[in-house]
Amino acid sequence: MSTTLEPAAEATFRQVEAANPVVAIVGATGAVGVELLHCLEARGFPLSRLKLLASPRSAGKTLPFRSQDLVVEALDEASFEGVDIALFSAGSGISKRYAAAAVKAGAVVVDNSSAFRMDPDVPLVVPEVNAAALAGHRGVIANPNCVAAIATVALAPLHRAHPIRRLTAATYQAASGAGAAAMEELRESTAAYLRGESFEPKVLPHPYAFNLFSHNADMDVETGYNGEETKVVAETRRILDAQALPIGITCIRVPVLRAHAMALTVEFDEVVSPEEARALLAKAPGLRLVDDREKNHFPMPSEASGADDVLVGRIRTDIGDPSGRSLALFVAGDQLLKGAALNAVQIAELLLKR
Amino acid sequence: MSTTLEPAAEATFRQVEAANPVVAIVGATGAVGVELLHCLEARGFPLSRLKLLASPRSAGKTLPFRSQDLVVEALDEASFEGVDIALFSAGSGISKRYAAAAVKAGAVVVDNSSAFRMDPDVPLVVPEVNAAALAGHRGVIANPNCVAAIATVALAPLHRAHPIRRLTAATYQAASGAGAAAMEELRESTAAYLRGESFEPKVLPHPYAFNLFSHNADMDVETGYNGEETKVVAETRRILDAQALPIGITCIRVPVLRAHAMALTVEFDEVVSPEEARALLAKAPGLRLVDDREKNHFPMPSEASGADDVLVGRIRTDIGDPSGRSLALFVAGDQLLKGAALNAVQIAELLLKR
Repeated sequence: MSTTLEPAAEATFRQVEAANPVVAIVGATGAVGVELLHCLEARGFPLSRLKLLASPRSAGKTLPFRSQDLVVEALDEASFEGVDIALFSAGSGISKRYAAAAVKAGAVVVDNSSAFRMDPDVPLVVPEVNAAALAGHRGVIANPNCVAAIATVALAPLHRAHPIRRLTAATYQAASGAGAAAMEELRESTAAYLRGESFEPKVLPHPYAFNLFSHNADMDVETGYNGEETKVVAETRRILDAQALPIGITCIRVPVLRAHAMALTVEFDEVVSPEEARALLAKAPGLRLVDDREKNHFPMPSEASGADDVLVGRIRTDIGDPSGRSLALFVAGDQLLKGAALNAVQIAELLLKR
Repeated sequence: MSTTLEPAAEATFRQVEAANPVVAIVGATGAVGVELLHCLEARGFPLSRLKLLASPRSAGKTLPFRSQDLVVEALDEASFEGVDIALFSAGSGISKRYAAAAVKAGAVVVDNSSAFRMDPDVPLVVPEVNAAALAGHRGVIANPNCVAAIATVALAPLHRAHPIRRLTAATYQAASGAGAAAMEELRESTAAYLRGESFEPKVLPHPYAFNLFSHNADMDVETGYNGEETKVVAETRRILDAQALPIGITCIRVPVLRAHAMALTVEFDEVVSPEEARALLAKAPGLRLVDDREKNHFPMPSEASGADDVLVGRIRTDIGDPSGRSLALFVAGDQLLKGAALNAVQIAELLLKR
């Protein structure tokens, strides 16, 4: 099996020198930025100072952290002086422009954008899955796409035991993946619908109230796959260290606020029983089994929202595969937590000297 | 290919004798019942009289039809005297109890419940797909499950040209499939959520506001498949006359009011190009191609709602099938129209003497 799918404890990699590092958040006022603050506080991250960076437009705002109000500063090239860990979450453009400055100033960058995810010099890490990949880092570590992060937490324990040979996924993606403004648009457009009023979409390309639509990422008009689907395929393969894994995928935006769900059909090289899969998933880190057939209780966004764990259930033999070698699963995970902020903070935790 | 997948015009079957038949609707006050009235009126169905039947609780209510207010009568064994066509939509229990009385009184029953759908003596009909199956009818014709009806309209034109050898489906199902009360629960619970108030679900087993969950049909705890999934599999096979077709399916209830959507992965015996599939679907009856990659415009519940046609798009080669023999599609159809009332009225139209 793969050499990168190894527990973090066995890996060695350049760690952060400071025992109590200075941490910066780039994009602190965004949907993910706010969750980064929450995660650092909730997990008792041993930082000596937290620096909040954002666009000049947001400079001067304050955000609460550990009973203090921290003032947001405008990001510039000089912002990373004295910073040990920089958590970037302000889009690919900002990451491409400022990550080098952060590294040059001595920081390790954990980047939530897609800027470096497929760069062979940049590890793409889900700590429960491939922490050992950190070994190669040169100052920048990529935090995966939200669907890839959530899916691989559920797939890796199965893939380790029985190599996956094909994956088919249909996603049910929340507004939060398109940012705080999209979440607000879902709330506002739904309220308008319920009042019988019209609403003109501003953030998303289609009406969102009680509606769903193909993911709004740019589409490759030749292949018919959108950028979200392309990212999930490439990143899932990279995180699972399964470069040739065939993955068919349909990414759909549904009227849910902040947790993604997905229906996965997983084909193995051999027959894997639902009982064995359940046992493997039950003991895997970062997962909670929600698989109660008697009570019709399975993973739901309402229960995944705000939860660190990815929920997995509806584990059954796929009746669509006559060979009996496929399982079907349903997965839900908080897009802002495991899909973004939590995973980034978990990477930062791995970087700390132990 | 199949002998039942034939246009209606070539088939002969017992038709309704009356040129202007008396039509009864059983369950007239339900979500589907109201749509049956709309469809009969909108399509200018040549009926001489419309009789509205429902539970004693609803008797005495009035419903508008062709500028008249029709009074709802309480259903009993004698209700079908003089009725030529009885459209049943009041659940399996009512169909099992009263269909025989209707047939005995001389009516042809079009039954929207699941009571007789797998009865070999009862044709299960989607007019665009297998109208010829009406040939065997003995007074009762079954109207399919909503997902099966919508899916087969999109699949049949492909299956006729290139036999389908495997199907994988993930559904995005609207509230309407669980009835008018579920639609109201979606509206009310969402309004409560937006006001910051709690809401106790009464109709559905889980919170519905900005949430989704595994379909609420009874689950087979042995196999892990719910009743909705089992119905879709069995009925899709029967309608397509493909009894051995392997179908893997996950049915999910999403916070949408009245149109179902589904991500379909369709494997053929040979390579079928997206261009050929698009051409086949573009000319097929009951379908509207919504497949604009440039504008990111694909089937959506908001555009399927209130539409007679099933919307089909995102037609592309499935990158998850290394053999290249699979296509991916996304489909949306009005659950109350093609998924229920419209299909029943279309069956009734086929029964009329021409």
